[in-house]
Amino acid sequence: MTSGPEPIPPTIAWAGDRVRMIDQRRLPGELAFLEATTVDELAEAIATMAVRGAPALGAAGAMGIALARVTGVPLAEAAERLAATRPTAVNLAWGIERALAARDPVAEACALAAADVAANRRLGAHGAALLPPGARVYTHCNAGALACVGYGSALGVLRAAHELGRAPSAWVGETRPALQGSRLTAWELARLEIPATVVADVMAGSLMAGGEVDVVLVGADRIAANGDVANKVGTYGLAVLARHHGLPLLVAAPTATIDRACPDGAAIPIEHRSPDEVLTVAGRRLAPEGVGAANAAFDVTPAALVSAIVTEEGVVREPYGPGLAALGRPRPGARGRGKSAGGGGPGR
Amino acid sequence: MTSGPEPIPPTIAWAGDRVRMIDQRRLPGELAFLEATTVDELAEAIATMAVRGAPALGAAGAMGIALARVTGVPLAEAAERLAATRPTAVNLAWGIERALAARDPVAEACALAAADVAANRRLGAHGAALLPPGARVYTHCNAGALACVGYGSALGVLRAAHELGRAPSAWVGETRPALQGSRLTAWELARLEIPATVVADVMAGSLMAGGEVDVVLVGADRIAANGDVANKVGTYGLAVLARHHGLPLLVAAPTATIDRACPDGAAIPIEHRSPDEVLTVAGRRLAPEGVGAANAAFDVTPAALVSAIVTEEGVVREPYGPGLAALGRPRPGARGRGKSAGGGGPGR
Repeated sequence: MTSGPEPIPPTIAWAGDRVRMIDQRRLPGELAFLEATTVDELAEAIATMAVRGAPALGAAGAMGIALARVTGVPLAEAAERLAATRPTAVNLAWGIERALAARDPVAEACALAAADVAANRRLGAHGAALLPPGARVYTHCNAGALACVGYGSALGVLRAAHELGRAPSAWVGETRPALQGSRLTAWELARLEIPATVVADVMAGSLMAGGEVDVVLVGADRIAANGDVANKVGTYGLAVLARHHGLPLLVAAPTATIDRACPDGAAIPIEHRSPDEVLTVAGRRLAPEGVGAANAAFDVTPAALVSAIVTEEGVVREPYGPGLAALGRPRPGARGRGKSAGGGGPGR
Repeated sequence: MTSGPEPIPPTIAWAGDRVRMIDQRRLPGELAFLEATTVDELAEAIATMAVRGAPALGAAGAMGIALARVTGVPLAEAAERLAATRPTAVNLAWGIERALAARDPVAEACALAAADVAANRRLGAHGAALLPPGARVYTHCNAGALACVGYGSALGVLRAAHELGRAPSAWVGETRPALQGSRLTAWELARLEIPATVVADVMAGSLMAGGEVDVVLVGADRIAANGDVANKVGTYGLAVLARHHGLPLLVAAPTATIDRACPDGAAIPIEHRSPDEVLTVAGRRLAPEGVGAANAAFDVTPAALVSAIVTEEGVVREPYGPGLAALGRPRPGARGRGKSAGGGGPGR
């Protein structure tokens, strides 16, 4: 399962009677795998972020119900246990519900995982068409294969461009405080042999001013109905810088990321995490005792600063409201058509 | 020397026959002192950044010549040895030359150190007048007492406002990669009992968007004749964000920071430091092996994004060229008058 042509093994997969995951806590030092044979083991892996990323958690939720089925745990009990691990992860609850509603939870979990990879490949193809040849992309956090079941969303766009021979390269913002950029994105790009250079997040401005960036490309954790985008903290600052320098900001996210119940960014709850993430690194205290820290995990980028939202169903541009509303609903023949969606004209 | 009313002891001081310094490598964990009794010991302290910051290095250069005099080392030899430690530090060479030209290098070094603190106090008073009551200041890197002989430049402004009972508070950007914000600025503000909250640098944007910042306040490493400002990397991004949110960007720096030979920011050389500063923290590798990093230590903020430059001689506003040209030249009665300088009207 880890061999074969894929340079990055599946983030999470159903392995007969167990769930097999890349242990992301051990990256980039080591590519190690973790197996969960019980619902409790999987719940622990989710809670400790061995597996993370919204699309990956959707698959994890479904596979947790599949595990309950094969180990004889009551499904409702398993659902409750799993959902409690990351209460704000909408995709997790969605995956759990999908598997609960299915006649065969194992088949449903496998189908859901396969669909995630297929969607990312379509998304990648749509996005790659927006990158100029030799694009120098600035990216933030990790919207890669490791955040999904495979292939990746924002990094899927880079990957598709690379596979098409368009020779993209990447500036990787390290993404303090949790360093998903230097730990995970740099690892993925190295395995894909896409040229990548890590920078402290503060260097983005001078790179743009120096003409060294062509496109800013990020993922999303939640997209409001009006196109406002919640993503890893720092995305908003990049959006302002991109606009100041006349550079496009592309947001790559599967349609599952669109929250139709959320009218705009102001309605998106922002998770605040432990100050220790900022005040310590690798167990070492950076700041003096007695000084506190604020640690918002996400920020909101207004739709007006977003040049395009790239999904598996096509590319949406302003006005985002009607464009997004047309996506993500089951329509005959809609999947895989690869046409541009929304009111913004052709997908480039 | 370390007791008394000052909450922060002098960064560097002449102690009879030796140089006494705060060992900044051990902050914030420990306030420890280092004594240099020979030119070689002082050169080592400069090279290893036990003492750092442009104004502090000016004093260090002068005190190095004083050490040579009292230990019987030929002055020219000492000057060469000291200047080689930080070849790009203009203030270091300036301090060395000041002491070499003086009849009594020891007296000159002491006078230079005292003048630095006095200049920062005047600068602080000018800058404090620009802060609204209860100002919530966002600052970056360390332009504090630790970067000078004492009191500080940008943090001197905060300190003066605090002493005037104007109740400022600070957001402290941690300032990756070397973390001068969380290590040094947070330590100074804690000792001064000025409320401070550390944040990852990427949070600046959402703080401004949320209306939680009134003023952005930074120091400078070099100011070109036209008002372009070189400062710690990340300053430029903050300047763009400040402008986007209609917030003032104040640059606080002694007149010695103005480089009249440098017409504009494009002529300022930008130091690129070791990629290891970005790729490792506390000896632990963050990114996968084989991935490189870019690590510019400074960036340039165009004068057009600077709201005011605060110096010990007064506040300069646009147009910066004539305003800066009028500063820093010995004029009868010019010192300590506290009047506004330059073409930008009154100093607030």
